[in-house]
Amino acid sequence: MSSKKSDRRKFLKTSAALAGLAVGGVPVAIGQAPSASGVRDLHAYGERSRFETSIRTGNNGYFGNMRDDLPKPGVRRDIGLRAPLQDSMGIITPASVHYVISHGYEPPAINPMEHRLLVHGMVDHPLTFTMEDLKRLPSVSRVHFIECRANGDPARLERKMPNATAQTTHGFSSCSVWTGVALSTLLKDVGVKSGATWVIAQSTKPDSHTKSIPMAKAMDDVLIAYGQNGEAVRPEHGYPLRLVVPGYEGINNVKWLGMLRAANEPYMDKRETTDYPELRPDGKARWFNSEMGPNSVITFPSGGQQLTGRGYYQIGGLAWSGGGAIRRVEVSIDGGRSWKDAEVQAPVHSKAFTRFGFGWNWNGQETLLQSRSSDERGDRQPTVAEMAKMWNLPVSYYESAPFLIGHFCVIQTWKVLPDGSVQNALFT
Amino acid sequence: MSSKKSDRRKFLKTSAALAGLAVGGVPVAIGQAPSASGVRDLHAYGERSRFETSIRTGNNGYFGNMRDDLPKPGVRRDIGLRAPLQDSMGIITPASVHYVISHGYEPPAINPMEHRLLVHGMVDHPLTFTMEDLKRLPSVSRVHFIECRANGDPARLERKMPNATAQTTHGFSSCSVWTGVALSTLLKDVGVKSGATWVIAQSTKPDSHTKSIPMAKAMDDVLIAYGQNGEAVRPEHGYPLRLVVPGYEGINNVKWLGMLRAANEPYMDKRETTDYPELRPDGKARWFNSEMGPNSVITFPSGGQQLTGRGYYQIGGLAWSGGGAIRRVEVSIDGGRSWKDAEVQAPVHSKAFTRFGFGWNWNGQETLLQSRSSDERGDRQPTVAEMAKMWNLPVSYYESAPFLIGHFCVIQTWKVLPDGSVQNALFT
Repeated sequence: MSSKKSDRRKFLKTSAALAGLAVGGVPVAIGQAPSASGVRDLHAYGERSRFETSIRTGNNGYFGNMRDDLPKPGVRRDIGLRAPLQDSMGIITPASVHYVISHGYEPPAINPMEHRLLVHGMVDHPLTFTMEDLKRLPSVSRVHFIECRANGDPARLERKMPNATAQTTHGFSSCSVWTGVALSTLLKDVGVKSGATWVIAQSTKPDSHTKSIPMAKAMDDVLIAYGQNGEAVRPEHGYPLRLVVPGYEGINNVKWLGMLRAANEPYMDKRETTDYPELRPDGKARWFNSEMGPNSVITFPSGGQQLTGRGYYQIGGLAWSGGGAIRRVEVSIDGGRSWKDAEVQAPVHSKAFTRFGFGWNWNGQETLLQSRSSDERGDRQPTVAEMAKMWNLPVSYYESAPFLIGHFCVIQTWKVLPDGSVQNALFT
Repeated sequence: MSSKKSDRRKFLKTSAALAGLAVGGVPVAIGQAPSASGVRDLHAYGERSRFETSIRTGNNGYFGNMRDDLPKPGVRRDIGLRAPLQDSMGIITPASVHYVISHGYEPPAINPMEHRLLVHGMVDHPLTFTMEDLKRLPSVSRVHFIECRANGDPARLERKMPNATAQTTHGFSSCSVWTGVALSTLLKDVGVKSGATWVIAQSTKPDSHTKSIPMAKAMDDVLIAYGQNGEAVRPEHGYPLRLVVPGYEGINNVKWLGMLRAANEPYMDKRETTDYPELRPDGKARWFNSEMGPNSVITFPSGGQQLTGRGYYQIGGLAWSGGGAIRRVEVSIDGGRSWKDAEVQAPVHSKAFTRFGFGWNWNGQETLLQSRSSDERGDRQPTVAEMAKMWNLPVSYYESAPFLIGHFCVIQTWKVLPDGSVQNALFT
């Protein structure tokens, strides 16, 4: 093992300066190329049926309380598009509809042959990696959700509208199979000096988004991902390289990753000091509160959907937690007065979307449907009242919702009306 | 549980005659629609980077020994496109590049609102299901490979060419997360009569492909899938409904599924009696030999790829078996003289692609790389010589390869040349 490691380090040192040839680039086709054989592009790289119309929806340039980060037309723009969770199947969100939040710029068109990852700072051997260098290293694949801390923000008006869908209420969360190199592998190879307690991750220009990750987390389960759902990470999600920080706020998952720096203090970027810390009513702030709490949402039946009559339905939904694996999901069909265990469906991965199912015979009357999840640490998804109590706030604070405080992972309520239509009923 | 089941059957009986409204159809967007907000379609439904060029490749109208099923131009066509396994990441094949074989017709453009699944034959309650009916039932998601029985066919000239890639040699195999209803759920609901030993599955017109599945298999792990990798099954893969028969030859996985019939004998379709049975040299045929054997292929480094210099590389590849879960993968870097255990990487699913990795320091000399897999039943992937012996044939039979006999899941050999180029070396 030690000789192997030494050889790998030798490779890392010598190859870092080389541009080299691409490995695994354009496939060498045997026989007729698709264009020559008359096979349509539809077959060479397939598309979904024209009857499938599920898309990301959202706003362009407005993000609730991101007041000091307004888009500058023609130069910068903010993109905030939610995933259509009401149409989800299983636990994987297709990359084409995975939620996108981008403060500032259009996703850059990076040529992977020219992309570099610099790893430096408090390390023994600062190195620059090409994409090819990274793909020579041991790779791992893991299923993880990514979620914006503002998911479900009650400060957004539409969160409370009766016609809100699961996309509106929870669509700033998505789940992928991520493939790449464990950050710990890179950090061990460059040799982190003692005293380095943070890893500062930064996007390439023009974004240059910067985020500080605690070293303990960096050495635990953070990935440097070049693959998503079996193919290269898509441009909106960080092509060709994205930091994946399982269970932490979306903003930690730095896209278009170009630099990692080991340091003995956090970077104190504006979003770390001003925008993202929790400002409590007593004026104190809570910084680096990164881990997302236990959450869940019933995706069928959910807001905007239509039941066609009484009878048997399989209630289905998604649960997830930044604290680890989902252990239990309960469903209430009486607005939270009583709860029964739902079936937690395999596979169950840590810090990943987890499917649940619950058999239900609808009697045709108005019904309030709810779900709540618990994770492996025993943390349970709260009601609005429990969330308010945790932050020492009145419930009315969230009903008027001047400003998001805390991760708003409260129990969602869907109201099934006698005509089979389904409405958002968060505050009813 | 019995009352629940009785209610479900009641639902099935009453709802089967109803067309009804779509549940979970076009999402109801809150606020600005993407077109109104100026958000580009790229963001509403994303695409891969233009630097990613991996595609399906293959032939149009030629399938090795499918001599009596030639395409009729203008009316019918055969499509046979292989997946670019050399570019795969993790265990999921993106639907856009999942292999496609279609004997006869273009994938039909089926409107899911009009699609029906008839379940009849030796059952107590014949029923017709709409897509909505099916989505009301309990759903499951499972990861499974699908593989054409002709994958790796040595009768195809390109299988032996030095410039063959992993796509050429193994690309008629792919792996997806399939979501749908367990076939056993439907069969229990319609009530299979005693004496019914087969389920006959048929595509809708114009394909009308028909396949007989043993009842024991049908009640075990067969799925009626409407979802693939988190979204609806793609048109080439059976939209809106595909039978998934884990571990069995691809031809069992009936696309555009329109009919299931319980019967006391197989259908004896032409492909069951003439094309697909194993014709042995002694003139005897082996019918319904459906289960795919243990297989594997090194995807990096593999044919057509280029190493940039000596040093550390992580050899990576895929292993799978129709017999269950992969238990062990071994790698040889000396052409099969000695073997060492590779790391079998999580997650490991039954009858699914499984990733393996093997650290390797290349000394810059010509090297023969091989992998072999073993499944949970202890079956191990054979050499060509072992395969020939099993069928009582000389090895030269496969070298000249007039006609495919058996599932040709033999150990693949890649040759790394001193200049770092990688070649197919199956028969060297």
